[in-house]
Amino acid sequence: MKQSMTLIPTLREVPADAEIKSHQLLLRAGFMRQNASGVYSFMPLGKKVLQKIEAIIREEMDAAGAVELLMPALQQAELWQESGRWYSYGPELMRLKDRNEREFALGATHEEVITSLIRDEVKSYKRLPLSLYQIQTKFRDEKRPRFGLLRGREFIMKDAYSFHANQESLDEVYQKLFTAYSNIFRRCGLNFRAVIADSGAMGGKDTHEFMVLSDVGEDTIAYSDTSNYAANIEMAPVVAKYEKPTEAERELEKVHTPGKKSIQEVSEFIHAKAKDCIKSLLFKVDGKNVLVLVRGDHEVNDIKLKNYYAASVVELAEPEETKQILGCSIGSLGPVNVSGDVEILADHAVGAIVNGVCGANEEDYHYTNLNPGRDFSDVAYTDLRFILEGDPSPDGEGTIQFAKGIEVGHVFKLGTRYSEAMGASFLDENGRSQPMIMGCYGIGVSRTLAAVAEQFNDENGLLWPENLAPFKIHVIPVNVKDESQAKLAEDLYSDLRKQGYEVLMDDRQERPGVKFADSDLIGIPVRITVGKKAADSIVEVKLRKNGEVHEVNREKLSEMLGQILSGQ
Amino acid sequence: MKQSMTLIPTLREVPADAEIKSHQLLLRAGFMRQNASGVYSFMPLGKKVLQKIEAIIREEMDAAGAVELLMPALQQAELWQESGRWYSYGPELMRLKDRNEREFALGATHEEVITSLIRDEVKSYKRLPLSLYQIQTKFRDEKRPRFGLLRGREFIMKDAYSFHANQESLDEVYQKLFTAYSNIFRRCGLNFRAVIADSGAMGGKDTHEFMVLSDVGEDTIAYSDTSNYAANIEMAPVVAKYEKPTEAERELEKVHTPGKKSIQEVSEFIHAKAKDCIKSLLFKVDGKNVLVLVRGDHEVNDIKLKNYYAASVVELAEPEETKQILGCSIGSLGPVNVSGDVEILADHAVGAIVNGVCGANEEDYHYTNLNPGRDFSDVAYTDLRFILEGDPSPDGEGTIQFAKGIEVGHVFKLGTRYSEAMGASFLDENGRSQPMIMGCYGIGVSRTLAAVAEQFNDENGLLWPENLAPFKIHVIPVNVKDESQAKLAEDLYSDLRKQGYEVLMDDRQERPGVKFADSDLIGIPVRITVGKKAADSIVEVKLRKNGEVHEVNREKLSEMLGQILSGQ
Repeated sequence: MKQSMTLIPTLREVPADAEIKSHQLLLRAGFMRQNASGVYSFMPLGKKVLQKIEAIIREEMDAAGAVELLMPALQQAELWQESGRWYSYGPELMRLKDRNEREFALGATHEEVITSLIRDEVKSYKRLPLSLYQIQTKFRDEKRPRFGLLRGREFIMKDAYSFHANQESLDEVYQKLFTAYSNIFRRCGLNFRAVIADSGAMGGKDTHEFMVLSDVGEDTIAYSDTSNYAANIEMAPVVAKYEKPTEAERELEKVHTPGKKSIQEVSEFIHAKAKDCIKSLLFKVDGKNVLVLVRGDHEVNDIKLKNYYAASVVELAEPEETKQILGCSIGSLGPVNVSGDVEILADHAVGAIVNGVCGANEEDYHYTNLNPGRDFSDVAYTDLRFILEGDPSPDGEGTIQFAKGIEVGHVFKLGTRYSEAMGASFLDENGRSQPMIMGCYGIGVSRTLAAVAEQFNDENGLLWPENLAPFKIHVIPVNVKDESQAKLAEDLYSDLRKQGYEVLMDDRQERPGVKFADSDLIGIPVRITVGKKAADSIVEVKLRKNGEVHEVNREKLSEMLGQILSGQ
Repeated sequence: MKQSMTLIPTLREVPADAEIKSHQLLLRAGFMRQNASGVYSFMPLGKKVLQKIEAIIREEMDAAGAVELLMPALQQAELWQESGRWYSYGPELMRLKDRNEREFALGATHEEVITSLIRDEVKSYKRLPLSLYQIQTKFRDEKRPRFGLLRGREFIMKDAYSFHANQESLDEVYQKLFTAYSNIFRRCGLNFRAVIADSGAMGGKDTHEFMVLSDVGEDTIAYSDTSNYAANIEMAPVVAKYEKPTEAERELEKVHTPGKKSIQEVSEFIHAKAKDCIKSLLFKVDGKNVLVLVRGDHEVNDIKLKNYYAASVVELAEPEETKQILGCSIGSLGPVNVSGDVEILADHAVGAIVNGVCGANEEDYHYTNLNPGRDFSDVAYTDLRFILEGDPSPDGEGTIQFAKGIEVGHVFKLGTRYSEAMGASFLDENGRSQPMIMGCYGIGVSRTLAAVAEQFNDENGLLWPENLAPFKIHVIPVNVKDESQAKLAEDLYSDLRKQGYEVLMDDRQERPGVKFADSDLIGIPVRITVGKKAADSIVEVKLRKNGEVHEVNREKLSEMLGQILSGQ
């Protein structure tokens, strides 16, 4: 492609409202333009990268046995009413009426549409399993669109859905697609982790998010520094063992702690370490009173509490209610002498405390020299806290580190959530009607593009990994009015294309400085500069990723490119 | 692809509401399903054909120097207000509001979006010309969606836009894309014509529609039986020469014709031929009274009348007004003794009438033996009538035939309609600001799929041309429980795929009759049946298009397929 024929609208200035690197650089390098808040056009270079990502996705999805189809963006309201999401999805679901006042949703996701398609077409276990996917524009009216393609209102997604006669079949396909996703993001060159995630309100069992590690990510991941283990922090179990100090138990003592509420205030006042204090919080767990204890340097993980009780609703008791039940306000709670209608649940770490500190259930009083077992005993111990950096990894290998992540993919065992609501059933081997078991699997295609841009850049611009680069080689004649430069550049452009390379040539009449700056900004892996030595058939080859430069005779160029570029 | 892994929901019955072949067969063969009126899902086979059409389009557009990008479906109302089409487009434009009550259009077409993009990015003649295209889902809320994919509300379109500094540049790109379009539809195997079309209210100069010849088409085309000439019938000039009969002029005679109004009634009553009668119609042309004369066997073409006067509004005078101006009602009008405030304009054919018949401008009276020139002379002659089958072709080659056509493509010289309304200007060589000159170029991608299905079918199903077939070869083991059949089929499936063929294998446990019927319905070009002779490595090769059958040994199969299938 010659630059005179295409549109690469580079910018020298950083656009004012672009906060993060990928957003800034994709705008500055002319890969995209904003049309409305959260709505973008992909300019020619951006579209090329999208197509490369899509091609990789198609190859891996096909290899995993999934089949491509294409469902519509206009979705009848009736389908969303059947699933119930017409009412629960909220304003993120864009809605409109047609000329006959019939209501439609603009596809934010396609569970409803595909479930209705499959319930109409598949009636027997013989036609299962089925894995279907599409690559399509999706619409979600984000409250606060931001970070360019990372959180937009119109974006490109690969969504897949699988249908099964039994759980084993779902497990098998889930594993296949998990592998496909790993391949996809690896081929995109991304530093990512498959992260154990919360299956949330969906009631599914397994779910993994594929997270690209990046400081601009909105989620925190706990990962092992030596193994593949990674989880959203709320999902990581704590396997730490706590050794009880050998120190002798001292006598329980009630201390006046006027106005001291937080662990920090109390520990400083008493000259104790936070880890020797007990944080006591009163929760309502499906209506039941539960006093939850964690160590002062730990935080309660609601999800673990919820899972322990298999509860639907977990919330902190209101201050008023707390006072009523335990006789004091929130900063002075503790497990000593708690009456029978309050259960006590403590994190394992609490059991190892010797001569600790806790609230005395009396305004402005705390106990010191508290010893669990001796001073309170009607307590159950479990894993209740958030994992921390430095904790041992739950898989037994290495130590936990934290990182921020951008979610680019999600695989999810849906179960029968949609098939039951929408009546997608099949006849099993015994002629009995059963709801289909489903999985769903998403990849944010345009978000993946942004995640790559976020991971691959330097102070001069983008640094596309070879697999995704819009072009492999950027040929730059320094002065197109110089006849030997123009001719050699044209010859190389033509030769390299014949050799199968994707080549961009900057045939513009611009100053060399402008051309080189644009070239760095765009970030094509290999630059071939055709300059003063063109008359001697010598060009300069420069690698964008590390700045390595070679002068090379035209005759040796192919060989060198063969070494530099791996091909796909 | 194994059929057990994919979803090809064939139907035995013709769906009740599908009126035309392509609609019926694409449903019956499982290529698509309807989600809502005019809204479809492309099932796996349909999606595959779409992708083949898209690949051909991309190749030809790229070769013509156009560059792909992708614009959004959500389009800010403000842009459509700038162009004025927010108000003029009517209910076909789907509209919605976001959560902040901002109005959007769902992209029905992208002139506004691309004009706004280009006006922001291109400021100089040095960056022109530019040709940009996208392949994208479009939304138009048709009043009466029908004929499946031929007139839907959500459909796939390739739209392209070009921007130019001068008319010559537009002409050149128009010609290139015209050629690209011809290549695209030829490669799709279609019997089509590039048809001269009406540039209508757009004020553009050249415009061609690419019409697939088909009885279900909604437009009528006049084409030459020997040359490439084709035009929408209202656009075809009539070049017929009319010889005046040598018969002597007889005396004008007024005849009582009680209750006879139409040409048919009058000519039968008077025992004259329709072609010897003059049809006289009073038009208001931008307010001016024009009595239009055509031969009784011809029809007035309003567009020619409008173009003759370069008028904005052309309409028939109301009966009341006609009576006021000419003194009688519509069935008795004629050109004799017409007063000065009525101009007379006649089609060339009228000038060759000798001893003809016309209305006498007196209720229930006609003249016979009318001779133009002698009996009325204040008349201008021009080409005013619709072309007819049998007329000479306007390009001088052959004779005109009529056909119905499905519009699959459209190339259009837009001129400055949008660039002026939206302020897309550039600085020319002399530093003067000029509006960009634009062209636009559309292809109905999903409509092309339907047009191919409409042209390629027989009583048993679809007959895909090789370039577009979802698979090239359909391998059918007659009985998958037979070990040698199953093994040979698997081997062939694997071998043929290694040889680069796209293969569908019917590995279902279905009766042979069901498999063959489905195979015919789906319409893959080559079927390889693995039956009883599998043990001897003999299979049957059948061509879908003509039913030709060959028994062939496995060893000779590759050679035979090489001869049958041309590759792409």
